[in-house]
Amino acid sequence: TMLLLHRAVVIGLRHAFRTKSTPSRLCCQAFSTNDSFQPQTPSLTFSGGNSSTGGWRVMGTLLGLGAAWAYHDHRCRATQETPRMYTKEEVRSHCSSEMGIWVTLGSEVFDVTEFVDLHPGGPSKLMLAAGGPLEPFWALYAVHNSSHVRELLAQYKIGELNPEDNVHPSLENSDPYADDPVRHPALKVNSQRPFNAEPPPELLTENYITPNPFFFTRNHLPVPNLDPDTYRLQVVGAPGGQSLSLSLDDLYKFPKHEITVTLQCAGNRRSEMTQVKAVKGLEWKTGAISTARWAGARLCDVLAQAGHQLCETEAHVCFEGLDSDPTGTAYGASIPLARALDPEAEVLLAYEMNGQPLPRDHGFPVRVVVPGVVGARHVKWLGKVSVESEESYSHWQRRDYKGFSPSVDWDKVDFDSSPSIQELPVQSAITQPQDGETVETGEVTIKGYAWSGGGRAVIRVDVSLDGGLTWQTAELDGEEQRPRKAWAWRLWQLQVHVPAEQKELNIICKAVDDSYNVQPDTVAPIWNLRGVLSNAWHRIHVHVAP
Amino acid sequence: TMLLLHRAVVIGLRHAFRTKSTPSRLCCQAFSTNDSFQPQTPSLTFSGGNSSTGGWRVMGTLLGLGAAWAYHDHRCRATQETPRMYTKEEVRSHCSSEMGIWVTLGSEVFDVTEFVDLHPGGPSKLMLAAGGPLEPFWALYAVHNSSHVRELLAQYKIGELNPEDNVHPSLENSDPYADDPVRHPALKVNSQRPFNAEPPPELLTENYITPNPFFFTRNHLPVPNLDPDTYRLQVVGAPGGQSLSLSLDDLYKFPKHEITVTLQCAGNRRSEMTQVKAVKGLEWKTGAISTARWAGARLCDVLAQAGHQLCETEAHVCFEGLDSDPTGTAYGASIPLARALDPEAEVLLAYEMNGQPLPRDHGFPVRVVVPGVVGARHVKWLGKVSVESEESYSHWQRRDYKGFSPSVDWDKVDFDSSPSIQELPVQSAITQPQDGETVETGEVTIKGYAWSGGGRAVIRVDVSLDGGLTWQTAELDGEEQRPRKAWAWRLWQLQVHVPAEQKELNIICKAVDDSYNVQPDTVAPIWNLRGVLSNAWHRIHVHVAP
Repeated sequence: TMLLLHRAVVIGLRHAFRTKSTPSRLCCQAFSTNDSFQPQTPSLTFSGGNSSTGGWRVMGTLLGLGAAWAYHDHRCRATQETPRMYTKEEVRSHCSSEMGIWVTLGSEVFDVTEFVDLHPGGPSKLMLAAGGPLEPFWALYAVHNSSHVRELLAQYKIGELNPEDNVHPSLENSDPYADDPVRHPALKVNSQRPFNAEPPPELLTENYITPNPFFFTRNHLPVPNLDPDTYRLQVVGAPGGQSLSLSLDDLYKFPKHEITVTLQCAGNRRSEMTQVKAVKGLEWKTGAISTARWAGARLCDVLAQAGHQLCETEAHVCFEGLDSDPTGTAYGASIPLARALDPEAEVLLAYEMNGQPLPRDHGFPVRVVVPGVVGARHVKWLGKVSVESEESYSHWQRRDYKGFSPSVDWDKVDFDSSPSIQELPVQSAITQPQDGETVETGEVTIKGYAWSGGGRAVIRVDVSLDGGLTWQTAELDGEEQRPRKAWAWRLWQLQVHVPAEQKELNIICKAVDDSYNVQPDTVAPIWNLRGVLSNAWHRIHVHVAP
Repeated sequence: TMLLLHRAVVIGLRHAFRTKSTPSRLCCQAFSTNDSFQPQTPSLTFSGGNSSTGGWRVMGTLLGLGAAWAYHDHRCRATQETPRMYTKEEVRSHCSSEMGIWVTLGSEVFDVTEFVDLHPGGPSKLMLAAGGPLEPFWALYAVHNSSHVRELLAQYKIGELNPEDNVHPSLENSDPYADDPVRHPALKVNSQRPFNAEPPPELLTENYITPNPFFFTRNHLPVPNLDPDTYRLQVVGAPGGQSLSLSLDDLYKFPKHEITVTLQCAGNRRSEMTQVKAVKGLEWKTGAISTARWAGARLCDVLAQAGHQLCETEAHVCFEGLDSDPTGTAYGASIPLARALDPEAEVLLAYEMNGQPLPRDHGFPVRVVVPGVVGARHVKWLGKVSVESEESYSHWQRRDYKGFSPSVDWDKVDFDSSPSIQELPVQSAITQPQDGETVETGEVTIKGYAWSGGGRAVIRVDVSLDGGLTWQTAELDGEEQRPRKAWAWRLWQLQVHVPAEQKELNIICKAVDDSYNVQPDTVAPIWNLRGVLSNAWHRIHVHVAP
């Protein structure tokens, strides 16, 4: 991110000084840094908290963000006169280049239409906030916490929000989802109740560690509001062992284990499967996948304390959430006991996500993290752990999250005939550019992610610009991981040269993992009635600007 | 096999009694059961040795193999007169329906042209012996050891072999391969020196456990001829531990561990890759894969005795064979120490294959067996084991057996850029019918195998008859395996109905493993310069008889 920002600003500066050398007069109004917005997740997880943003400030100061104000000579629109008042609705309607692009900060309203193309982080990042508040984005990108940025923004002020619009709307009490937390507005919502949302592609691969507010959210039920002081985790003891009722403090006493793990929903990229034939499920695009640093007690340590050990017969560790439907049925899932007890499999009862207590949407106060395994087994708001001779009887273990042949439809599906999804297959997707976008000729950067289940490392990502006739190998970013424990994704990028005569690009990516498993070429032969396991080559079509 | 044999004979009997009801007169000449042929591997591994062939005899007696002699009324060609003499060359030329089909047993020559279609095991099985001796096949199919079969065969006698042709030709002493063992003639030879051969598809999936003589053979060098009494395995000790020099008896003292494991060469199905673009390597078809019961000492136990334990830094267990090239360089390979020390990974120093000492071609007296991992790491004729901080420096570890992008060719390949192949991806192939074959309309059986690396179980095989438009799910045969330890293949079959109007079938199979990895649709995007990891959908074209 630093490098990209640096490049954008340097290019902007060159451009600025080539076209105009007189700096614009700065508007002197300062505005408060203590605004009323309280982001749900207060600190910047990817930089280790608010205290470590010094590096960003230095960078910001060095670059001065001068490109923008050197280039533009805006009149100061924020005058000392009575400000013009706007409704939230009016602001919301200004979210395109046609209508103009407005944003808010605190109670102030800004028209940043002319600034969008100069945004050092790229126009698309700023567009995420178009028609709404800046705070959720600034809370994540601490570089904005500088006087330079505030001075720059002040030039674009056009007025203020109506006082009655400057509060969060209250939610109805009869709604079982009324107590759900407030989410980051950048998330693309697939379903409000239960809440299911993914980060937009251009944010997804901006950070190797996904900031908590951008982490994709997959809820099956309303989010429980649990009191950490009275929270107890029930662990059913083995015959001859003892059952445990663990408070958070009890859990903290187990050795703390911290690992970087990518979670992916079985339905990630389902929208591509829908294009073959309708399926039942949320229309996830490429964003139902995210990566975090998780910390907690190892499940094997907790199970050992309850007297459990590996047995010769097959057994399963069943998890129950504290979320429940109106009949009181909780979310549930299970994993094989062998995985749960294997210290090398690093299954966690996690209470921290990127150095913070788990956000409510991600299972506060405790969730299961099963590295290399489908998201559906990472049970959130964990209430109970037991060892059983059979898999969990939960709907989501036995009647969902299973793969079938393309020939199986709802009239003949036998859910018992197929094993529950545990480890996921190799996966990759392009996040930049996006399908249907127009790119310039010359140097183009293609970016994306790649991951595989079961701790298998991604060893190569091939990219084609010509629909699969020829391939280039992308550069892999992100942490090197230990053999058999590659729990986290690799981000990748490829710089390509698009010649002037090129009219379009048919871009494809495909990944290979260290078992040399590859992605299938096409979607139709892996189509299944639930639209899970959608891991065919990711294909996008891009126009080239003439 | 029993069931298939049963069906073939029952169908034959029905046919026989419908068309002709007078049994033929039996020729009374008995021929010796003690012929001069000594098969290299004397006993029937898949039935637990010669003593357990009683079941087959009963079956043979019950069925009486009467179909054939009920149908045909052969003149007894083997008279008491001086027999006509033939050279081996003459016999060898009679191996097609056009030339006639001759076989030998001991010194006797038989023209079985008219019997081929009546063979209870199917014409294709008998055709494997066309132009050569029956003994190697009879040694494997004990059902032939009955007086009924001998009487039947005697009817087809046409003469004897020239005495000078009735011996094995002696091999030159200057040839480094002169001391290689004699192989089963059914094997399809890809290279004589070093010897590389695969079983024909129709034999490959005839047995869940591959009989030793039919197990595919992949040699890189001449086969060493080792004395079991003086054989020693060198195990380099850990710092502070002790080096070991283990005799076979020493190895026998470790707990004996026995598992069923499928081995596959990285080059299996390379011939399909060659059709895309030339590669370097042996032209394996679908048969560079086989399954055996392996028994031996666990590598983790032997390493522990030498003082080795898991360390935080990455390490590798290096193996050296006792086969070597003219410069004295031995075959070598390595696997990660973590796998070697994991008791659940079940890595063996194997001294038994299907209840027998290892055949020479398969590593006598000791080879490594690394379940779920590419054949190239299962070092044969094992001489030395050591633990190193780096992978083996062997050519075959570092300059071979690696995968590359289709865009990488010999002029730009960087072998260091790609990890050595360890676990293999999901694989499947059709063994019956075969590409280009003609099948009848009505019920057709499609058969094949499916396997995946890393202990991942095959959970489904999809079969298409229409080039991939629609799919049916095949029935899986073979042992259920323990989770995460599915080291062996599944055989599969599907009965389909081919309607009368059908002209051709484009049959495809594709497998899914329990991590829901699938095979890629096509070969070109996984093409690589060494032609390894060829696991695209297996496609065959079959004609339907009008």
